[in-house]
Amino acid sequence: MSGAAEPVPAAGSTSVRRSRDVPLLVERARAGDPRAVARLITLVENGDELLPAIAAALAPYAGQAQVVGLTGSPGVGKSTTTNELVRALRAQGHRVGVLAVDPSSPFTGGAILGDRVRMQDHATDPGVYIRSMSSRGHLGGLAAATPQAVRVLEGAGCDVVLVETVGVGQAEVEVASLADTTLVLLAPGMGDAIQAVKAGILEIADVFVVNKADRDGVDATVRDIQGMIALGERGPGQWRPQVVRSVAARGEGIDDIAAAIDKHRGWLVEHGELRRRQEARAAAEIEAIALGTLRARIGSLRDGTQLSTLAARVAEGATDPYTAADELLAQLAR
Amino acid sequence: MSGAAEPVPAAGSTSVRRSRDVPLLVERARAGDPRAVARLITLVENGDELLPAIAAALAPYAGQAQVVGLTGSPGVGKSTTTNELVRALRAQGHRVGVLAVDPSSPFTGGAILGDRVRMQDHATDPGVYIRSMSSRGHLGGLAAATPQAVRVLEGAGCDVVLVETVGVGQAEVEVASLADTTLVLLAPGMGDAIQAVKAGILEIADVFVVNKADRDGVDATVRDIQGMIALGERGPGQWRPQVVRSVAARGEGIDDIAAAIDKHRGWLVEHGELRRRQEARAAAEIEAIALGTLRARIGSLRDGTQLSTLAARVAEGATDPYTAADELLAQLAR
Repeated sequence: MSGAAEPVPAAGSTSVRRSRDVPLLVERARAGDPRAVARLITLVENGDELLPAIAAALAPYAGQAQVVGLTGSPGVGKSTTTNELVRALRAQGHRVGVLAVDPSSPFTGGAILGDRVRMQDHATDPGVYIRSMSSRGHLGGLAAATPQAVRVLEGAGCDVVLVETVGVGQAEVEVASLADTTLVLLAPGMGDAIQAVKAGILEIADVFVVNKADRDGVDATVRDIQGMIALGERGPGQWRPQVVRSVAARGEGIDDIAAAIDKHRGWLVEHGELRRRQEARAAAEIEAIALGTLRARIGSLRDGTQLSTLAARVAEGATDPYTAADELLAQLAR
Repeated sequence: MSGAAEPVPAAGSTSVRRSRDVPLLVERARAGDPRAVARLITLVENGDELLPAIAAALAPYAGQAQVVGLTGSPGVGKSTTTNELVRALRAQGHRVGVLAVDPSSPFTGGAILGDRVRMQDHATDPGVYIRSMSSRGHLGGLAAATPQAVRVLEGAGCDVVLVETVGVGQAEVEVASLADTTLVLLAPGMGDAIQAVKAGILEIADVFVVNKADRDGVDATVRDIQGMIALGERGPGQWRPQVVRSVAARGEGIDDIAAAIDKHRGWLVEHGELRRRQEARAAAEIEAIALGTLRARIGSLRDGTQLSTLAARVAEGATDPYTAADELLAQLAR
């Protein structure tokens, strides 16, 4: 696989317009065809009507990749750290997928050219698949598309999938929460520790990475985080977040980050927590899809005649809104 | 009916804990028992499980009252105007209900004692029913409870129901939108005209009342509003909002407000718009109840075993989230 930026229709297929073409596309992705992977993610990202068929074809490969979330404020060094982490994981022999769902990411266009070029380190590596995600044209946005995109990369044989987000909004926190292991990046003197608490990021952090650790104030930042961790309530069987220092721009501390990820992975497996997290994510996904379907059905009823017929009967006093709502739901079920 | 502030259990009933007690309670309310009316509104306000039975018993009386919404910023004179309007409507022989869903209302505790006392003018009048609404303990809040409370007052024989809200938030706009005729109150020099546009209140106003019209700047305010009305796009068969001046504290202009309400009522009937508004409101009510039921069902599944069983199957690769969502919905329908 390579970092093909633009999706290309799978060669030889009729541009995948029918559900029966999906298994072949997934087969190609599994065989390492980067264009098939790109095409699948594009379909997922656009909320294509083929989504159920794609999900069905990918189902057998669920849970095979380690999903690592990486979040933090803009300027904290996320893309540099991601880049170096990819290098370290490749050195360990892993196949790596990167999903950048970060408006400030070099892949989505917000960062400086230097970063963009640096990430090209991996552009010719067939063991790395890099993809930016945007929320265009998709109801529910990134939070809806990202879990399926992770499944595509899993299906394509990635051992590790890095999901890079900006830790500033609820949507990003949700995206980060789909990870087995979540890294929260901070930098000295950015007041990030307090911001992290406010944004609810403390709750989702498994590993804190204090990047730019060659700067003044790094000890104070590490102390702040350790103070927050100490204050956090945690049962005896719970994971205690790790704190790691790095200078990603010089490649320092990256092995420590990788070790912390491995350690957390081991803890997840040992405590049965990995399966619990995977199941919690699956439950959230199922619920979101079910609610989306129900909303769409109610929307179609509004456009149709059922709801207006019932409303007319309520307005003329022939029935009441609760009975009418029950009738509407009975019609939905048909 | 009188302005009983506190709900009292209907005398002689077993405090209405069963659906079969509801028809008797509604019968009492229709006979003019203020305690029965108060009890019904309390049940509605608390989102009681008897709601469907109450709605069913009230259904035959739908659309019998003229519902008049009255909204505007705090300090614009809403309660004084409501008070004077009640007086004028009583003089015309109407039975009047007032629902104050306004945090700054004298009935919900935000205003000065003078207002509170003034509104007591009608406390001993059996042709007036006054009730404050709060959103406590009710999922969906006032927007959910108010339509049913209007139905209670309708069922109790009110010819006119005044719904007083503060025009500052989306919820208040929604409450106001349940009226046949919506009055928007403004005062000179409060910059309300622009605020009204921002808050989307312009779209819901059938009558603009410029209160405190003895103040400086009243002509400019009236001009601003007329300018906005002229700019608003409106088809040939559409209602053109009226502008009325009043000094409610001196009882001036109240007859003009009543006349504008009557004129709008006549227009609604003549154009078939009254039934259209009643049906649109019924449709919104049905849809809200249906969605609430679906959410509750999904919530109960989350607590139950169905969702977690499906999630476990997705996590182990035995099925995909779309198929699982379909199965969940099929279980909901059972």
